[in-house]
This record gives sequence, C-alpha cells and structure tokens, in this order.
Amino acid sequence: MISLSIALIKQSALVKSIRRSGVFAFSVTLLVSVSALLSPVHASQSTHPNLVVNQQDVLTMRAAIKQPGSFKQAFEAQKAQVDSLLTQPILVPVPVDAGGGYTHERHKKNYQQMYDAGMMYQLTQQQKYADYVRDMLLEYAKLYPSLPLHPKRKSRNEGKLFWQGLNEAVWLVYTIQAYDFIVSSLDDTQRKTIETGILLPVADFLSVQSPHTFNKVHNHGTWATAAVGMTGFVLDKPELVETALLDLEKSGKGGFLRQLDELFSPDGYYNEGPYYQRYALLPFVTFAKAIEQNQPERKIFEYRNNILLKAIYSTVELSYNRLFFPLNDAIKSKGIDTTELVIAVSIAYGLTANNDLVDIAKQQNRILLTGDGLKLAQAIDANKPSHYPFISREFLDGKNGDEGALIVMRQHTPTDQAIVFKATAQGLGHGHFDKLTWQFYDAGEEIVSDYGAARFLNIEAKAGGRYLPENKTWAKQTVAHNTLVVDETSHFKGDVKVGNKNHPIVDFYHHDDKLTLASAHIDTAYDDVNISRTMALVSVKVDDKDTPLVFDIVEVNSDNSHQYDLPLHYQGQLIDSNFARQAATEKLTPLGKQAGYQHLWLKANATPKKGLAKVTWLNDNGLFYTHSSIVDGNTDVLFTQLGANDPDFNLRNEHSFIQRTNSKQHRFVSVLEPHGEYNPSAEYTLNATSNLETLTYERQGDLSIVGFSVLSNQGSTTFVLAINHQTKNSLDNNKDNNTTQRFSYLGKTYSFDTRYQLIQISQ
Amino acid sequence: MISLSIALIKQSALVKSIRRSGVFAFSVTLLVSVSALLSPVHASQSTHPNLVVNQQDVLTMRAAIKQPGSFKQAFEAQKAQVDSLLTQPILVPVPVDAGGGYTHERHKKNYQQMYDAGMMYQLTQQQKYADYVRDMLLEYAKLYPSLPLHPKRKSRNEGKLFWQGLNEAVWLVYTIQAYDFIVSSLDDTQRKTIETGILLPVADFLSVQSPHTFNKVHNHGTWATAAVGMTGFVLDKPELVETALLDLEKSGKGGFLRQLDELFSPDGYYNEGPYYQRYALLPFVTFAKAIEQNQPERKIFEYRNNILLKAIYSTVELSYNRLFFPLNDAIKSKGIDTTELVIAVSIAYGLTANNDLVDIAKQQNRILLTGDGLKLAQAIDANKPSHYPFISREFLDGKNGDEGALIVMRQHTPTDQAIVFKATAQGLGHGHFDKLTWQFYDAGEEIVSDYGAARFLNIEAKAGGRYLPENKTWAKQTVAHNTLVVDETSHFKGDVKVGNKNHPIVDFYHHDDKLTLASAHIDTAYDDVNISRTMALVSVKVDDKDTPLVFDIVEVNSDNSHQYDLPLHYQGQLIDSNFARQAATEKLTPLGKQAGYQHLWLKANATPKKGLAKVTWLNDNGLFYTHSSIVDGNTDVLFTQLGANDPDFNLRNEHSFIQRTNSKQHRFVSVLEPHGEYNPSAEYTLNATSNLETLTYERQGDLSIVGFSVLSNQGSTTFVLAINHQTKNSLDNNKDNNTTQRFSYLGKTYSFDTRYQLIQISQ
Repeated sequence: MISLSIALIKQSALVKSIRRSGVFAFSVTLLVSVSALLSPVHASQSTHPNLVVNQQDVLTMRAAIKQPGSFKQAFEAQKAQVDSLLTQPILVPVPVDAGGGYTHERHKKNYQQMYDAGMMYQLTQQQKYADYVRDMLLEYAKLYPSLPLHPKRKSRNEGKLFWQGLNEAVWLVYTIQAYDFIVSSLDDTQRKTIETGILLPVADFLSVQSPHTFNKVHNHGTWATAAVGMTGFVLDKPELVETALLDLEKSGKGGFLRQLDELFSPDGYYNEGPYYQRYALLPFVTFAKAIEQNQPERKIFEYRNNILLKAIYSTVELSYNRLFFPLNDAIKSKGIDTTELVIAVSIAYGLTANNDLVDIAKQQNRILLTGDGLKLAQAIDANKPSHYPFISREFLDGKNGDEGALIVMRQHTPTDQAIVFKATAQGLGHGHFDKLTWQFYDAGEEIVSDYGAARFLNIEAKAGGRYLPENKTWAKQTVAHNTLVVDETSHFKGDVKVGNKNHPIVDFYHHDDKLTLASAHIDTAYDDVNISRTMALVSVKVDDKDTPLVFDIVEVNSDNSHQYDLPLHYQGQLIDSNFARQAATEKLTPLGKQAGYQHLWLKANATPKKGLAKVTWLNDNGLFYTHSSIVDGNTDVLFTQLGANDPDFNLRNEHSFIQRTNSKQHRFVSVLEPHGEYNPSAEYTLNATSNLETLTYERQGDLSIVGFSVLSNQGSTTFVLAINHQTKNSLDNNKDNNTTQRFSYLGKTYSFDTRYQLIQISQ
Repeated sequence: MISLSIALIKQSALVKSIRRSGVFAFSVTLLVSVSALLSPVHASQSTHPNLVVNQQDVLTMRAAIKQPGSFKQAFEAQKAQVDSLLTQPILVPVPVDAGGGYTHERHKKNYQQMYDAGMMYQLTQQQKYADYVRDMLLEYAKLYPSLPLHPKRKSRNEGKLFWQGLNEAVWLVYTIQAYDFIVSSLDDTQRKTIETGILLPVADFLSVQSPHTFNKVHNHGTWATAAVGMTGFVLDKPELVETALLDLEKSGKGGFLRQLDELFSPDGYYNEGPYYQRYALLPFVTFAKAIEQNQPERKIFEYRNNILLKAIYSTVELSYNRLFFPLNDAIKSKGIDTTELVIAVSIAYGLTANNDLVDIAKQQNRILLTGDGLKLAQAIDANKPSHYPFISREFLDGKNGDEGALIVMRQHTPTDQAIVFKATAQGLGHGHFDKLTWQFYDAGEEIVSDYGAARFLNIEAKAGGRYLPENKTWAKQTVAHNTLVVDETSHFKGDVKVGNKNHPIVDFYHHDDKLTLASAHIDTAYDDVNISRTMALVSVKVDDKDTPLVFDIVEVNSDNSHQYDLPLHYQGQLIDSNFARQAATEKLTPLGKQAGYQHLWLKANATPKKGLAKVTWLNDNGLFYTHSSIVDGNTDVLFTQLGANDPDFNLRNEHSFIQRTNSKQHRFVSVLEPHGEYNPSAEYTLNATSNLETLTYERQGDLSIVGFSVLSNQGSTTFVLAINHQTKNSLDNNKDNNTTQRFSYLGKTYSFDTRYQLIQISQ
C-alpha cells in the first residue's frame, strides 16, 4: 500500500499542478471501470482496524476500560446497550419504505448496531460481538445482489437499500468501519461472501453506477467518495481509493480533493450554513482520518491550509449557547452536541491536542469509544480549566473567499451579546433571501431572531416530516428576516438561480477591544435599489458599568420611489412603545398578499412623531430590550404576528414590527439596547425603561457621525461614534500619507486616521 | 417573662374553651390601650437575640464560619455584601412614592440591610456592623415621629413609611430582628431614643392606630400581629405579645391564634392558593419561631395538630418541577426557591430534622445565616440521599376542611405526570371562577395549563406593575380555565361574593399504586345547571411499558337547554387532528363579546363525525400529547388563540380548543395521552400519533364503565375501567353487607366492592 500511496501523492501533485494550469484533458485516458475490480483481494489480517480507529488506539482503549474514568463509564453503558441488542433477532428486511418508514429506519439502525458491536468486539475480544456483525452482513450479502432500485426512489439520487443514494452512502461509511473491526475474525469464505455480496456491490453502486452523484462537488458526493474510498482501504483496493479522491475518471474535476477545494470557503465556512455544515462535515473528517491512517504522507489535514480543521472550528463557532445560528434552512434545536460534531471535535483533538476543544467536548457531554474519544475523555477527567475562545470573526464565503462573508460579533463570554450579520452568498437550494439580515443574542437567548426552517423533522402529519409549504412561502422570504424588503418583493424576486449568481460585498470588518464593526452592501437584490448596512456592537462605560449597544444603519438608494420595509422579529412580550399604537382589537387581516406578507396578521400600526421611536420588549431571559430608531414623522411602524394563511397551524406565531416608508432614498438608524431585569420570583423589576436618551446621525463626507447619550447617575453621558466608510485601500493610504478624517460634533472638531473613533463627550 | 408566658397559656386555654362554647362577651373587659405602655422597659442584655435566632444558635454559627463548608461560603458572600453596604451613606428619605418608587424601594432595602448588618454583628462581633444598624435606626427615630400618613396611602390599610400598612408591618418584622441582634451593644440613651422614637411608635401605629387591620383574620393582620408581638418580646412588653396573640381587645376574635385557626384548612391549604400562601407563610413561621423561643411551653408548632408544619409542607407540595401551581391570581415564575419558603423550610427542618426537607433546600439553593440555616447547610454538606416524597394528595379547603378540596394526582417522580384538579372554594378576592378546572404537567412542563394572573409585577409600563385590566376580563373568567362554561357566562356570573359563599363538593378521592381517582360536583356555579367531573390518572402496562393516561368525565345536567363549552388550554404547537378543520386564513374575529370570550380569536372550527375526535400537539419538552374525546357528531371544536381586544399587547398569545354543544344534558368523556418523542437534534421522531385506539363510555347504575384499547406490539390491548360513584358511606356498606357492584363489558360480567376496578381484557 505504501507504494500506492506515494503514487497517489505524485498523482495528486500532478492534479494540483494541472488544476493550477487549467488543463484537464488527460483525465479521460485514466478511465477505469471499478466494476472490473470486484474480484476480492482480501486485506491482510494484521492491518485492521485502520480507518478512524487504528490498532494502537485499540490497545490503549483496552487498557482504559480497566481504569476508572469517564471512558470506562461510556464503555460500560455502550456494552450494556450492545448486549441487549444481541438478544434481539437480526432483521434485514426487503426495502419498501421511504424516510421515516419501517424498513428505512431498520436499515439505519442496522449500520449503527454493526458499528457498535464491531467496536465492542475490538474492545472486549469476545467473539459474540464479531459474530453479530458477521451474521448481519451475511444477511445483507444474501439480500443485496437481487435488489432492484428502491421502489420509493428519488430521481437523480437513487438508492437500493434506501429511497435515496445518500442514505446508502451513509450506510456504507458506517458498515465498512464495522467490517474493519471484525474482518480479522472471519474465514476466507465468509470474507469473500461479504465482500462480493454486499460491500463491493454497494461501493460499485455508489460509484460506477451513480456517476452523477459520485463525481459531484456537493456533500452527497462527499458521502459517496468517503464510503467508496474507505472500502478501498479496508479491502485493499487502491483503485477505489484513487477514484474516491479524484473522481471516476481520476480527473480531479470531482472527487474528495476537489470537494475539499470547493465546498468550504478559505475560512472553513460552508455556504449552506452551519445546519448543513455539521452534516456535511462527517464524511469529510471520517474519510480524512482514514486517509491520515493509511496515507499519512498525504498530510490530508494540512491540505489547503488545514481546511478541515478550519471547517471544524468554524462549525463550533457558528453557535450561540450551544445551538447553531439558524441560517438558511435550519432546524433551530440543532447544536454543537450533534453526533457529527462530536466525532469531528474528537478527531480535531486527536490531531491537535488543543485544550480549547475540551470545553466543547464537555458541553457535548458524550464520550466516543475511539482512540480520539479516549484522549478527550482523559482530558475531561483531568479537569483542567478550558474555555473555548468565542470571539468576533469574519467568515469569508465562497470557495475563493470572495463571495461576501458571515460576520459574528461577540462580547466577552459565550453567553454575552452576539450579533450575526449575514452578508453571505445565497447558499444554494437551502439558502434564504435574506441579504444583509442580522440576528441578536443575549444572556443565553435569541432576542432578534431568524425563523429558521419551517419544518417538523420526520413528523409524518407535518408534510411527511419534510420541508413544509410555509418554508417556501414564509421562511425563505425576505420579510421573514431582519432586512430590507422593497415593494413587498423578496430579494432576487425570490429566484434562487439569480441569488446564487449574486452576493453582497463586505466593505469593511473591524474588531478591537472596544467594538466590532462591519459594513456591507448589495446592488443586485433589486433592479434599481442599492442597499448598504453598517452594524456595530459597542460597549461603553456608563457609571463604571459596561453598557452594550447595537448600532444599525441601513441606507437605501434608488432613482425611483419605492416602499421600503425594515422588519425586526423580536422574541418576547411587547412591553411598551413611546408612541401611540392603533391596535386591531376586533378583527385581524393579513398585511399583504405575497412574498411572506400573506402570513402576517397586522395587529397594530402607528406613525411616530419625528424624533426617536422606541419599542421595548421583555425576553424570557428576564431582560428588557429597547429598539430606538430615528424617525422622520413619515415612517410607519406595523406590529405583526405570524399565522395568517396557515390552514394547518404550521407556523410559530411569532412577533415582529416593521418600519415602513415610501421614498427614493432612506436611512434607517437604530440602536438596540439590553437593559434592566424582570425577576418576578424575587419580586423585583429594575430599569424597565430604555437608558438611551438621544440618538443623532449625520453623514459628513466618508464619515457616519452617530451621537448618543445614555442615562447615568450624574444625569446623562454623551458619546460620539464616527465611522469611516472609506475603502480599505484609502484607509491604509491615510496613514501612509499622514492624512486624517475630520468631523465636527456639537461645535467641536475631531480628527482620526483609523476605521472609527468612539469618544465620550460629557460625563 | 416566664410568669407572663404561663399566664398567657392559661389565657389561651381559656380562649380556646370559650371559642368552643361560642362565648366571647368577656373580651371587652380586658381592653387595654397599648399606647399607655410606651414608657420603655428595656429588655435585659442577656436575653438577646431571641427571636428566630437565639444565643445558642449564634454560638454554633460562630464556630461554623471557621470550618469549611457551604455555611462558611454563604457567610463570606454575605459579609462581602454587607461590607460594601457599609461604605455607602445611610439614606432614610421622607416617604413620597408608591410601590416601585424610590422612597418605597429605599425603605424596603433599609430593613433588609439592617437585618443583614445586625446578623453580621452577631457572627463577627465587630462593632461597625452594630453601629450601622444603630445609626440607621437613629435616623428613623428622628424621622418617624413627625410623619403624617403616607401621601399615596391606600384606603383601609394606611401606612406612614409606606403607602400601605402591610409594608410597614413587614418593615417592623425585619427591623425588630435587626434590633434584637444589636440591642446589647447600645447604651441606655440610644435604646431609649430608638425604642420610643421608632420601634414602639410603629408597633402602636400598626396595632392601636390600625385596629381594622390588626384585628383582621387575614394575612395583612398576620404581618401586623407578628411585627407587634415580636416587638413585645424584644422590648419585654408582654402586653404587646398578648394583644398580638389575641387581638387588641384580647378577645381571641382576632389575633395570631385566631389566624392560625382560620386561615389554613386542616391540611394546611390556604384558600387563595400557593402563590399567596408562600407570602402569608412568612409572618406565621417567623412569629411562631419567636414564640417557640420565648414561650416554649406554648408549643405553638403543635397548635391545631401542627397546622404550621402542615402549611409549610403543603406549600412545598403545591408545586411541580420547582414552580408553584398557578392557582387563582398567581405569577407563574414563583416557585419553591422564594425567600419566604426558604425561611419556612429552614424553620421546619430546625424543628423536625426531617431529611426530606434537605432535598427541597438543595433545590432552593440558598443557605440562610440562622441557626436552622446552619443545620440545613450541614445536612446538605453531608450529602445524604434525600428525595422529597411528592405523592398524590387531597388538600381539603376551608377552615373546617369542608369547603371542597384541591386534588393533586402524581406519578412516581417529581417530574412525571401530575394533575391538579381544583375543586376548592373561591379563594376570596384573588380567586378565579374556575370550579372543577384542571391542569396537567409532564416531563417537567405545563401541558394543559392555567393562565395564572395577568400581571407584570412592578413593570411600570404595564398598569403600574399591578394587576392588568385583563386579569379581570380574561384571567379570572371561567373560559380562561379548563372547565365548563355555560352560555358564555362565568361561574357565579363572575360575582366573587356569590363565589365565596359556594363551593364544590368532593364526592370521592382514592389513591393507590395503580391510579389516583377523584370526583366532585357543583350545583351552584349556574342557577339551573349541575356539573360533575371525575378524573383519573392511570398507568397501564402495554408491552411491559408503563403507559400513563388521564381520564376526564364531565357530566352536565339541566332542565333547560344551554350552550356548553369545555375549553382546553394546551401548551405547544398543534400537530394534527383526526378531523377536518375549517381555518380562518384571511380574517380573524373574536369568539364572543364578554366573559373572556372577547379575548379569543377564532382560528378554526370543526364538527368531527361521531366517534373519537383527536387533537395532537407537541410540547417544548419534546413529547406529543393527544386529547381524544368521544363525540356525538353534534359537538363543535373551536380552535382559538388569545389576544383579541388586547390593545396594549398585555396577553400571552396562547392556544386552546373548545368543545361546544347545545343541549340539556351532556357528557364529555376524554383521554389525554402523552406519547412519542420529537428529537430534531438527534434527528429522530418516535410515535408521533396517538396509541389510543378505542374509547367507550357507558353508565351502568352507580358505575361509569370506560373501555379503551391501546396500540401494542401484538396489535392492541384492551382494558376496562369501572368507577363506582356511590357515596363513601354506601361504599363502606358494600363491604359490611357483602354486596358487590356488577357490570357487564363486552358480553362478560364483572363484580367488585371497591371504588374502582381496572382490568386488562385482552392482550
């Protein structure tokens, strides 16, 4: 195998150089039929297991289960579960059902059970566990060769055991690991039966018989290449490994390496968002770990500047209080404790021994029975302090990092304030029309929220557990997000193809101890409207206390007059507004007809007088939040509740308010401020009204001048925040040329040469 | 003092015998002016402190703060807080503000701070702490004599330091304890100034000058008598103690003992419900503890069969997953960790050393710096297993236990299923028109819920933090509860005086290992309608698994035709119904005009076909709940959401469905069933549809025959539950006379002589 590995590395280097020069023509000459390789060449007994877990791992694990500690506990719990499994009959039914149905769930359970029993065999060396896996595989070997395509198959991604090929690939990723655990216990006949009856046929089905998926640079392709490549390692079939890495034609146009090149941005951001990122991550890290074991000289984890480690870290960081940011189609209860990320974090820890990851593993609260899992268990037992550094970051989007970015702004601790400012690309079919939207989190909870996906996963009564119709009619629409809607029409007119071709431009991102600041714009969401948004998470000292404030400046420009709506979806109970509202008390009607507006009941409307319009709500975390906007006297505020045109009660009845104005140019300037505390248990309420006393905005050349004052013990403390909108190049030139930006505020003149200036004017 | 104590006991015995014979005439002859007693007779230095904390307690506490443990930690935390206090100026402002305002909150803080500093003096013997209390009291002694009645006073319960006398009494309850801690550090002049300048004047104001409150058998009276009585102990003024115990006239018609006789039922249930019970409890247990220290021979905690201990235990038990059942006007976030119950539980533990209470104290997570607090801290540190036995119980209501009952049905553990079946009396001014309502809890959460109070405590923007208008128009109304509404009119036509005069009758309550069962009726909620309700919490074995089921049988009878509405307020997202619903998708209108109906938007309606009508929802706890009702084809089901006619967005927008029928007699027979699991994090959904396959009801003489079958691995398992509605006497006679109740089900005949029979008919 070593000679092969070197060959592969050379091949890979070749492919790389080719890729750089853009020449791919030679690939056809390497075309090989994997089907021709089905004659079994058994892997040697001495090299198993050697995928995610190797022989050395097994030796240390066998020692660890004899010592007290969390690894031993995890082993014993798992052993009890597997033992109970062994008392039940092996069931390998003829595939009939779609997702959620009996045969589907049965085959899903089977691969997990084979994996668990196989690992138990490695740990205990008791034959009964190996026999269980063997017997199940023999059943599969009997069933599979005669199977037609699945009766409930989905077009373009067909399966045999499952309705879609994706599940078939996942099945093989687990099953090949289980086989790797027990292969050394089998005689030649058994091996031959299993390898030719089920393992190679599934690998062949996933690759040669499914070229469209296998060669695709997409996470479905990653599952297929991982399954086939790992099968190649275990069965000692270098051809399978090579096609997995380079595609069926070994062209490098598809395959695992190309997937590594393209599916993540240089920062490890996956453009469908963290919900799909954690799912896509599993075949990547699993196959990479297997490559690392079998072809360490490939240094797969260093590939593309450690792209896989970056992807793992970024998945961890795209979360707040353990739950993933619900970007695009995302089910909101998914968080960092998902199996995929437990495995990925263990593998990253095995590679790096980075103590920060121990904090994450503790929160995941699950010990894996692998070599890396043991290392983490030992680190957890050692109980060294570990705090994962959740900090402000810009995650560039696009394979070249040039398709916008997701900007995460954070204060000190993981449950302090966090802003997600989404200036990313569309994110393909699961993307939402939510350019320049934002979310806000504080004290552990969502405050300004994103609906996520409209879906009840696997609940048959809710559209068969698939995406609900309201995912399209509401959740994907622009008005379902905290960003600008023009003329009650979603971004890109709701056309995902147009969305995929366009993305916002991030104008700047800046982070230091005082604040995080970013600005982005998009000119393509609407034909004739330019939108730019600048956001800042700031903490100012008032009465010696850190006072967090969120600044939000949305600028809209068009040559034509339009209706501009800026919705804000808040979590909590409305407490008050500093302007009169006309409530709909006897009748509710929908706010609009389409683009999501048909789902909003209009509960109240208002036209606040020129000045500062404030809306205060109380979140379940016991804190108050006040949103203060500069209004011109011609801006309406519409209070809505979700739930109109929802005959099946599919939607959560959440609350929003929408600032609405009709004009060519408009600037929405707002501050969001956490304040006070509601503690009915201890019977006190503190500071239930906003502390923001004034807010002003003025544009002076390249500068935004935001003045604000905050109530303090001495009366009021005034600040000015000057933001420099120059391009990065111009800004750099300032310093080089010794030029400064000047601005005047309250009769005084100030100058600076950096991105921003934040000054306390008065006590 | 001892001679006085004996005199008092004799007096008390006399009063008791008088009370029994109904003769009260002698009381007038004992009338004494407390004002005449204001000349100071200082308590001797050797006897302080001796209220809730005595000198022996102080000695053990001083030792404990030198040993590691949770008591020492609590001491150190408290000391740091008090030390920071001492750096701040003493502020004793002239009273101006109502509740929530500055002077109100300042005087509230002051008494707590004097208490804390006083205790710190006892523990550390450092003079600075005593000086702080002394200086603040001297300020009060300067201010108080000149004070008029409070400018924002409330009629009939006036204060001077506070807008209501209630707060003034609470102030003295804390302040007299603080004085007790530091009195031995004062010279005679200081004592005289403080006692005649503030302590006795406040006691005089609360008693002689406020006879209406002081003599009242009501929790406001308890605060006043506790404050005055404890002042009597500390200042060695037996007259004050005596009037506190027996009322101003020493008649025994009012005073603390009468309050003990009347404010709790024999089971320790307080008829306003647990939210007010925990508040009322504090002066009771505090004064009682002081009586126990000073007059142990009175055996106050044994008074009326340990009524105070019963009240403490019942307060603990009127909770689910740490939160009180929200009966009547109750803010839902109040739970067993409130200060009042922390103090009460510590006193109960000091008296009984009952290990069950350690479990509660652990959940309260707060160590008190008192002698009893130390005992609990040591018990917690010892870490002995302790599980408070939350079990099914009937809490009789009414001072004689003959005004209905609150019935709590529970399964095994504290977070298993629990039913609250409310067949209590009205509960005075804070009572709701909710006769025979119920609530259901499971897996830590509310499933079938009660709105509680419509109030945002102390949030100025929400009606000044007081009860909202919607508390009267919604929260108190019958339709806001899970019980029968006739002709869209609340029970007793919403008249609290009529409500207070009438109550349901509990027909039976039965509890054993298999089920808890109760039945109650009321004929007075409406002029011509009799309502009876029978509920059972049952656990049957299906496939060897415990399967919990709630049975609910509501019978309504009238000679006249009426509209009968049976609402059910569910917590969660509607998943499905097994009947078609016509949803209001384009317009919502209120369901009615009054009695709470004006607040309900009608979101959908349906008329299920004759048979079993099922509604399934998903709770935040991840479990599914299906409510299955036998319907006759003429019963409508109305799906509603709260929020109509709510101009200020004061209401939570919760969901309900209402069964509606028009007839003279009707029987609503339903089963509520928890099932399955929704786990989008681990990506599985189990058993999202109801397992109840059939439900039948037949009345055979005195028996309700409920047949039901549950889906099982073998197909279906059929049971019959026969409930005997005979009176308790008739039931007892059955056994004496060897007669049995017979019933037939599915062609077979069964007989039994007990309250119920639950039989598995088929596998």
